[in-house]
Amino acid sequence: MAGKTVGRSTKPLLRALAGETLDRPPWWLMRQAGRYLPEYRALREKAGDFVTLCLTPELAAEVTLQPIRRFGMDAAILFSDILLVPRALGQRLSYEDSGPALDPVSGGVDLPRLQSTEIAAKLAPVGEAASRVRGKLPDATALIGFAGAPWTVATYMVEGGTSRDFHQVKSFSYRDPQGFGALIELIGDATFEFLTLQIEGGVEVVQLFDSWAGILSPDGFERWVLAPTKRLVTALKARYPQIPVIGFPRGAGLLYERYVAETGIDAISVDTTVPLGFARACLQTRVPVQGNLDPVLLRVGGDAMRQAVTKLRDELAAGPYVFNLGHGVLPDTPPEHVAELAGLLSAPRAR
Amino acid sequence: MAGKTVGRSTKPLLRALAGETLDRPPWWLMRQAGRYLPEYRALREKAGDFVTLCLTPELAAEVTLQPIRRFGMDAAILFSDILLVPRALGQRLSYEDSGPALDPVSGGVDLPRLQSTEIAAKLAPVGEAASRVRGKLPDATALIGFAGAPWTVATYMVEGGTSRDFHQVKSFSYRDPQGFGALIELIGDATFEFLTLQIEGGVEVVQLFDSWAGILSPDGFERWVLAPTKRLVTALKARYPQIPVIGFPRGAGLLYERYVAETGIDAISVDTTVPLGFARACLQTRVPVQGNLDPVLLRVGGDAMRQAVTKLRDELAAGPYVFNLGHGVLPDTPPEHVAELAGLLSAPRAR
Repeated sequence: MAGKTVGRSTKPLLRALAGETLDRPPWWLMRQAGRYLPEYRALREKAGDFVTLCLTPELAAEVTLQPIRRFGMDAAILFSDILLVPRALGQRLSYEDSGPALDPVSGGVDLPRLQSTEIAAKLAPVGEAASRVRGKLPDATALIGFAGAPWTVATYMVEGGTSRDFHQVKSFSYRDPQGFGALIELIGDATFEFLTLQIEGGVEVVQLFDSWAGILSPDGFERWVLAPTKRLVTALKARYPQIPVIGFPRGAGLLYERYVAETGIDAISVDTTVPLGFARACLQTRVPVQGNLDPVLLRVGGDAMRQAVTKLRDELAAGPYVFNLGHGVLPDTPPEHVAELAGLLSAPRAR
Repeated sequence: MAGKTVGRSTKPLLRALAGETLDRPPWWLMRQAGRYLPEYRALREKAGDFVTLCLTPELAAEVTLQPIRRFGMDAAILFSDILLVPRALGQRLSYEDSGPALDPVSGGVDLPRLQSTEIAAKLAPVGEAASRVRGKLPDATALIGFAGAPWTVATYMVEGGTSRDFHQVKSFSYRDPQGFGALIELIGDATFEFLTLQIEGGVEVVQLFDSWAGILSPDGFERWVLAPTKRLVTALKARYPQIPVIGFPRGAGLLYERYVAETGIDAISVDTTVPLGFARACLQTRVPVQGNLDPVLLRVGGDAMRQAVTKLRDELAAGPYVFNLGHGVLPDTPPEHVAELAGLLSAPRAR
């Protein structure tokens, strides 16, 4: 079903991403499948390690579907991980209690070790998972695929995991911009393959997560976020012009406008710090906006959450809008709060 | 010498902060005294723990003066710590290898434990250190005092140290805004006392570090950054109208403009992510700007650093400007790079 637009006009998410303003804005949540759900934890325990879960199509498909069964979001997002790309490039990847661990790449010497020849074979199960999910989704529910943007993937590859300060990757980019540029390009090419597999498997939208876009200087942002994202989006649009691309340059702050204007993305996902008036006046006038409830509010629940949801819809739902969080669901979020949120979002917007 | 303006017009930092455009912009560096200097490490080893170092006037004064002797910055910043305030409020504070550790405050139950009655006595050594430094500085070198802004201090008090995600403090602020507001107010009052001691001891400028301003939603920023900063600045201005206040709401992004417009600060320190064109057009038109070389560039040195320094001066030195980093000096920065920076900054700006 590669590149088919079957049912596009009946799926709320696809309508909103095409620029339509809906009475009831569609919704989904970043990390909607995962640790906060007891059924996920049970399945995870059986599957063993996280990478096995991602690369076993029936398990990845099941995890993808779990939140849809409970809460009926307007989109499923394929259960996968942005670090499958470095793994496919030959970097050792494991998940410790403290987060992901990779053998750090440290410049010119290490680059030749990475190879992109077997990407498609290594990542094929992700495409299979997409195809399994697609067959099981309700008619109105869209399927989203995703990847990390090259800069964010590079931070993990160079730091060897998550980082507090990102000194290694920033130092690499300053000391040897050409070598770092080669790494970014390699990641970009592999990411294109990764997304191709997902689209060929049946995802109807892709989101690029640039979770660490917000730590760069403006020059770095231009070179390592804007340019590689534009290159990737251009390649995707050439092959799959009908697949909308959502960009999420978390923490881009003063550079959100340039990101929207210069990368070619179809919709912008905004983090929790973005003022709604700015999102409406400066971003939504160009592309549909997605976001940005504080995930901590979903964890806290109650009046504070309800008021924030109302405010978000009041401010953004008069234009093309997709309700989401400003970052992923926190692992200790009570599922009942998500159920309440689903209830709030099922009502059409007051006019 | 409380509140005296002795020599104001001859000190480049004070002239720039008063709105003057200087041929050679003044400079200093956040964390210019500290671990990257071998003489600091030697003294630290003798002194034992970090808190003792901060609260022994002769030692704190010596550490404050070390970088001035080596590099001749235009300002010394009193060696101290933002967490002396929670400690003075009665919270247990120690420094582990992983960073500061405090017994976390968790809401209404814990607030009465905190008390502000002995603040002045507990923090008196900081004022003494200021007075010692003031007597030993070159005539043209200004002395800066500082404190954490209430929100940032609250994050440490509630999380019990540094945090990756700040869930505890954000949850507290959402669950019990009144209780959290009481904590913020208590911190604000203690911070006023802390800065009063420093000013009475002889500091000529104060900087408010709001290192975690960038993690809040816009509503949270308004309530926990803008309002408490305005309250504190108003109190300082009432007693010390001649002392300039530099605000540093790190990561404020799209909210820097409101911070400048609404808090009453005299100058704005901008972090590394802030585009220079924005700083010039939207901030420097209102107040002097300070910043924002990436500390990683100071660590890396070489051409990349030199080019960035030139660019910064080209873009910002046509208005009132103080050269600084966008965040603190990194502990593994080679002192030789700071020496080279001093050389670059000693030349008047080309016209």
